[in-house]
Amino acid sequence: MSPSAELSAASLPMGSGAQGHQSTARHNNPYQPVGDFLSNVSRFKLIESTLREGEQFANAFFDTETKIKIARALDEFGVDYIELTSPAASEQSRQDCEAICKLGLKAKILTHVRCTMADAKIAVETGVDGLDVVIGTSHMLREFSHGKDMEYITKSAIEVINFVKSKGLEVRFSSEDSFRSDLVDLLALYRTVDKVGVNRVGIADTVGCATPRQVYDLVRTLRGVVSCDIECHMHNDTGCAISNAFCALEAGATHVDVSVLGIGERNGITPLGGLMARMIVQDREYVTKKYKLHKLKEIEDMVAEAVQVNTPFNNYITGFCAFTHKAGIHAKAILNNPSTYEIINPADFGMTRYVHFASRLTGWNAVKTRVGQLGLSMSDDQVKLVTSKIKALADVRPIAIDDADSIIRSFHLSLDKTSEANSDAPLDAQSEVAAN
Amino acid sequence: MSPSAELSAASLPMGSGAQGHQSTARHNNPYQPVGDFLSNVSRFKLIESTLREGEQFANAFFDTETKIKIARALDEFGVDYIELTSPAASEQSRQDCEAICKLGLKAKILTHVRCTMADAKIAVETGVDGLDVVIGTSHMLREFSHGKDMEYITKSAIEVINFVKSKGLEVRFSSEDSFRSDLVDLLALYRTVDKVGVNRVGIADTVGCATPRQVYDLVRTLRGVVSCDIECHMHNDTGCAISNAFCALEAGATHVDVSVLGIGERNGITPLGGLMARMIVQDREYVTKKYKLHKLKEIEDMVAEAVQVNTPFNNYITGFCAFTHKAGIHAKAILNNPSTYEIINPADFGMTRYVHFASRLTGWNAVKTRVGQLGLSMSDDQVKLVTSKIKALADVRPIAIDDADSIIRSFHLSLDKTSEANSDAPLDAQSEVAAN
Repeated sequence: MSPSAELSAASLPMGSGAQGHQSTARHNNPYQPVGDFLSNVSRFKLIESTLREGEQFANAFFDTETKIKIARALDEFGVDYIELTSPAASEQSRQDCEAICKLGLKAKILTHVRCTMADAKIAVETGVDGLDVVIGTSHMLREFSHGKDMEYITKSAIEVINFVKSKGLEVRFSSEDSFRSDLVDLLALYRTVDKVGVNRVGIADTVGCATPRQVYDLVRTLRGVVSCDIECHMHNDTGCAISNAFCALEAGATHVDVSVLGIGERNGITPLGGLMARMIVQDREYVTKKYKLHKLKEIEDMVAEAVQVNTPFNNYITGFCAFTHKAGIHAKAILNNPSTYEIINPADFGMTRYVHFASRLTGWNAVKTRVGQLGLSMSDDQVKLVTSKIKALADVRPIAIDDADSIIRSFHLSLDKTSEANSDAPLDAQSEVAAN
Repeated sequence: MSPSAELSAASLPMGSGAQGHQSTARHNNPYQPVGDFLSNVSRFKLIESTLREGEQFANAFFDTETKIKIARALDEFGVDYIELTSPAASEQSRQDCEAICKLGLKAKILTHVRCTMADAKIAVETGVDGLDVVIGTSHMLREFSHGKDMEYITKSAIEVINFVKSKGLEVRFSSEDSFRSDLVDLLALYRTVDKVGVNRVGIADTVGCATPRQVYDLVRTLRGVVSCDIECHMHNDTGCAISNAFCALEAGATHVDVSVLGIGERNGITPLGGLMARMIVQDREYVTKKYKLHKLKEIEDMVAEAVQVNTPFNNYITGFCAFTHKAGIHAKAILNNPSTYEIINPADFGMTRYVHFASRLTGWNAVKTRVGQLGLSMSDDQVKLVTSKIKALADVRPIAIDDADSIIRSFHLSLDKTSEANSDAPLDAQSEVAAN
């Protein structure tokens, strides 16, 4: 039995009304920031890097046609920037960069280059709107990667930034491995490039070691040092890529790097869909107005196919179980009001909700809804009794919706023939399972 | 071409030495907490809930044999507690609970029940070491789920806690949906149950809406109100389940709920493997001494098979690409010192590292290593030249390790016949791609 077959067979499709979803997080939580002028959670911008960071994913090989398809889809979705592999990587990379610049997309096109004049000179000729310049600043990268000291790094940065600006292009300067770099070196370097007139500085958790409160502290400190925009690039090795991006925005960062399904080096970076899940809970109006959320699944499917992976079963929003409710106590409350156990309205993403009622964890409220859907009429006590029969079969083996329906119909038929004498059994203890 | 076939064909298996991994995060990060006596990141306990929360996953149906297999494997891994579905859910659930209690595992066995005397009475007879008691305290759950007020909730809590303690068992009291509950109600309730002598109170982000700094603030506040242990239960709807658990520990929580692959209601909770990734970076000694990390993949495979899902391609630690390095600049540094781009040593989990060298993003350092592995000898300039040939082919189509090897061998053969006149081409600009 495949997961999708099981889902469609043994679950209960439901309408996904919008009631209540919008306001719950903001109004009922005493910890919600109120009038936090530092926070950019309601005015962030996306730098979509599937065609740069994503190309570093183990399985990625994007031909020109695929790159163009992905770029167009991301543009339709509404991302602010699309970042491309360095034209210095290979001749085809350079040609693809030029081709995408010629598409006339609404999104600004960036390319990501090492902090060298050689790379910058190749990049400015491709037609991009801006360059994302990067260099390793941690002592580890200085020792084991490029072998340069901070003085050399600062000098190169100024030279490259001035060059890119002289061409009328946008320029970002980022350190690599920012969270293992010396804080004073980092702040001094960023203050210098800010004064030179860089458009953005970037904080990168290149190895995925940063924790949310570290990110908040570093970005908050940096916010007091530079006046330009602040971008964050968060790897997911320790599961904090979404949280870290969110905390960076809370601390005053303005731009977040994402990729579709989070693909990138190792297990990747902040995923586009996962960040949308986080941000829509924070500011539904901003997110729904700015981004075409209904396109998310299509874009994820396109990229998953291109890199030959399956969408993870537990993927944010579009995973097959993202809006599936199973425990009886959950099903009961969801049927009364979806916001009780759902912080995101699936309809905002064109998705639907499922309430499982054919399992041993079911409750009589879920079964009662199914009885109604079948056009049958029963008292609550009768529903509780037929619920116990469903649970008894589901104790023995996984059951499908057909099994449960048969039990309900058969039970209903027997009601027509007998009195309601069986309906007072003490079933309440088994009717809903505790769950949090 | 399947992902795994591509991986084994076009990547470079490498030894995964332990050098440097342990100390990098602690010694080089100015934001690392120093002597933070509130934090429990170096002394947390795991409550493993695959057999409770995990049973609420859409696809889960665990028969008795499977439950016992999973419980034994988790016990071997070293989890502190194993939490089971309420015996009030169904007759088989009750029998399974009894069966697992009789296994004589080292882990303590808990079961998770509603805050009612009926459920508690069934549970204490099963042989469990303790009860995890839960009730919804948010206004939404009070209105749409159980319909009780705070006075009733407090009275029930005291009655159930006293009953469980009278049986000599451990008892935890948790609210559901803690982050949408009234803060004063919550603190008053927890202070009351703490005075009654509860062993732990639980904070549950039942809908996955909490953010890391909210979690830190709430747990920090609670830490000042109760003297008992604090457990946290974090759903992953908005991608913060690992971060939120981590921030709870930083703020003084003592226990974290996890499940294998994070399975649970909707897209689940904090995953066991993902939390291990986070915690080993924080305190490698504690994590490696306490938990048998080499068993992680085996347990994940067992559970994935039982619930008929594939391990996500980007799964923490055990996903096929978790330790795969592709961009040239990454490969170069990784070959010099793995800690440059890896915060976790794959060998700690019995996993291995791969360095991709057969792609257009490759660099000459990765190719140089491969040349050495093939037993060939070339100058750096020659390696740069053959790298450009590999990149040229990889620009046209995805290439396998055999393709790259053929190019290297063919090039080496031609060297024997000609002079080294070709070796001074200006290739440095294409030799390593910027990447963060």
